[in-house]
Amino acid sequence: MKPVLKLALEKNTALVDEAMEALLRPKPDLPRSVRRSMRYSLFAGGKRLRPTLVLAAARCCGLEARKALKTAAALEMIHTYSLIHDDLPAMDDDDLRRGKPTNHKVFGEAMAILAGDGLLTKAFESAALNARELALDGRTTAELIGVIARGAGAEGMVGGQVEDLAAEGLGKKRSRGSSARALESVHRRKTGALIVASLDAGAVLAGANAAQRAALRSYGRRIGLAFQITDDVLDVVGDKKKMGKRGSDRDNDKLTYAALYGVEDARSKARALIRQAHGCLKDFGARASVLHELADYIIERDK
Amino acid sequence: MKPVLKLALEKNTALVDEAMEALLRPKPDLPRSVRRSMRYSLFAGGKRLRPTLVLAAARCCGLEARKALKTAAALEMIHTYSLIHDDLPAMDDDDLRRGKPTNHKVFGEAMAILAGDGLLTKAFESAALNARELALDGRTTAELIGVIARGAGAEGMVGGQVEDLAAEGLGKKRSRGSSARALESVHRRKTGALIVASLDAGAVLAGANAAQRAALRSYGRRIGLAFQITDDVLDVVGDKKKMGKRGSDRDNDKLTYAALYGVEDARSKARALIRQAHGCLKDFGARASVLHELADYIIERDK
Repeated sequence: MKPVLKLALEKNTALVDEAMEALLRPKPDLPRSVRRSMRYSLFAGGKRLRPTLVLAAARCCGLEARKALKTAAALEMIHTYSLIHDDLPAMDDDDLRRGKPTNHKVFGEAMAILAGDGLLTKAFESAALNARELALDGRTTAELIGVIARGAGAEGMVGGQVEDLAAEGLGKKRSRGSSARALESVHRRKTGALIVASLDAGAVLAGANAAQRAALRSYGRRIGLAFQITDDVLDVVGDKKKMGKRGSDRDNDKLTYAALYGVEDARSKARALIRQAHGCLKDFGARASVLHELADYIIERDK
Repeated sequence: MKPVLKLALEKNTALVDEAMEALLRPKPDLPRSVRRSMRYSLFAGGKRLRPTLVLAAARCCGLEARKALKTAAALEMIHTYSLIHDDLPAMDDDDLRRGKPTNHKVFGEAMAILAGDGLLTKAFESAALNARELALDGRTTAELIGVIARGAGAEGMVGGQVEDLAAEGLGKKRSRGSSARALESVHRRKTGALIVASLDAGAVLAGANAAQRAALRSYGRRIGLAFQITDDVLDVVGDKKKMGKRGSDRDNDKLTYAALYGVEDARSKARALIRQAHGCLKDFGARASVLHELADYIIERDK
C-alpha cells in the first residue's frame, strides 16, 4: 500500500470509528443485545474502504473530510449490514468473516437479521444528520438520501445479491458470452453500486457539479468491477487464512471471473479497468491522490 | 367501521397502492424476481393503517393528502418489510399471513430477506422523493428522514422486535410488575414506534409546529398500545381464520397482555387508552375526524 493511502486509511478509520461509536452509544431505548450485535460486525476489522471513498470524493470536490464523517459512517453501516445478511445460513451460509465467527454464529440468526436491519436504518439517520449539520438545502439533502438508497437497494446492491443467488450453479450451464454478461451485471451491482454511491454521496455533500459527479461515478464503476474480479481471483489463489473465510464461492459452484476467464486473463482485465479509473480523475489534480493510490491498491492487495 | 374512516381507507388504499406501483414499476435494473417478492407482500391485503395515519396527520396540519403519498408509501413499505422479516423461520416462523403463505414460503428465505431489505431501502428513497417534490427545506427534509429512521430502527421498531424475541418464554418466569413493564416496552416500540413515526412524518411534511407534532405523537402512542393489546386479545379469542395466522404467540409461550391481565382487563385498558387518544386531538377540530374514527376502530376491529 502506498504512503498517502496508508495514512488516509489509518486516519479515516480512526475518525469514522469515532463517528460510529457516537451513533451507537448506549441509550435507554437501544437494547443492549442488538447494540452488541451491531457493534460486533461494525468493529470487526473492516478496511473502511467505502468511508474512505466518501471522504476522498468530498475532498476532491472541495469539502474537508471531517465534515463528511456521518455519511462515511452511513456507507460503512450499509456495507456491514450487507455482510451480516449475506453470511446468513439462508444466503451464503458462511461461518467466518475476516477470521472471526460471523454475526449469526455469535448472536443467532434472528439477532443477525435484526442487527442488519438496524444498521441499514441507522445509516439513513446518520446521512440525514450530516446534511443537517452542513445546513444543506432541501434538494441536496434529498439527493444525498436518494443516491445512497438507489445504490444500496433493489436496483443496486440488493439487486446484485439477488442476481448472485440466481447465478449459483449456472457456471457450467451457459455460453461464455451470456455467462460474462450475467457476471458483469452481478458485479456491477453487488459491489459496484455501493462503491459508486459512496463516491457520489461524498460529491453531493460537497456540492459537486454534474461533471465532477459523473467523473467520480465513472471511476467508481471501474474500481468496483476491478475489486470484484480481484476478489474472485483471491478466492482461488489467495491465502485463505488471510481472507478469513473458506472458499465458499467455489463450494457453491458460483459463476466467477476466475472460472470464466482464468486467473491470468481476469487479472489483466482488472489492470485495464484500473488504468481507465486513473484517467477518470484527471480534472481533480493533486486532490485525487488518495483515489489514485486506492485504485492501485485494489488490484495489489493481499498478494 | 364508521363511514368517514371507511371512505378514507378505501380512497387512501387506492392512492397509496398507485404510488407504490409507480415506485416499483418494472425497470432494467430491478431484477424481476425481487420485484415479484416485494410486490407479493406489499399487495397482500394490508389495511394501509400506517399510510392512512401519514395522510390524516398531514391533513390535520394543513397539507392535502395527495401531497404526502410517497411518504405514506414509505411507511407501508417499512411495515411490510418488518412483517416479512418477522415471519422468517429464524424469527416467528409463521407460514401464513393474512390467510396467504408468508413471503419466504413462496420465494424462499434468501429472497424474503432481500425483499425486506429492498423495501426498507426503497422507503427512504420514497420519502426523499416526497420531500423534493414539495420543495421542503434542508432542515425539514433531514427531519423527515430522521423521524422515519428513529421510528423504524434499533431504538424503535427493530428494538421492539429484539425485546419481543428476548421476552419469549418469560411469561411465567417474572413477577407481574416486571412482566408488565417489559411488555409495555416491547409494545411501545414494536408496534407503537412506527405508528408514532407515521403521524409525525405526516406532520413534518405539512410543516407542523412543535405542539401539533407533540399532540399527534401522544395520540399515536396511545392508539399504538391499544392496537397491540387488542392484537393480543384477538389472538386468544378472535376468529383465527379471520386473522389469517395461527396462534403462534401462544405456541411460543410469549408474554401477552391477555395472559398478563386476562382478556377483560386488557380490553378495558385498551378502551381507556382510546379515550385519552381522542383527547389528544382536541385542537385539530373537524380535520381530525379520520383519526377519531380510527382510534375507535382499533379496539372494535374483527370482533
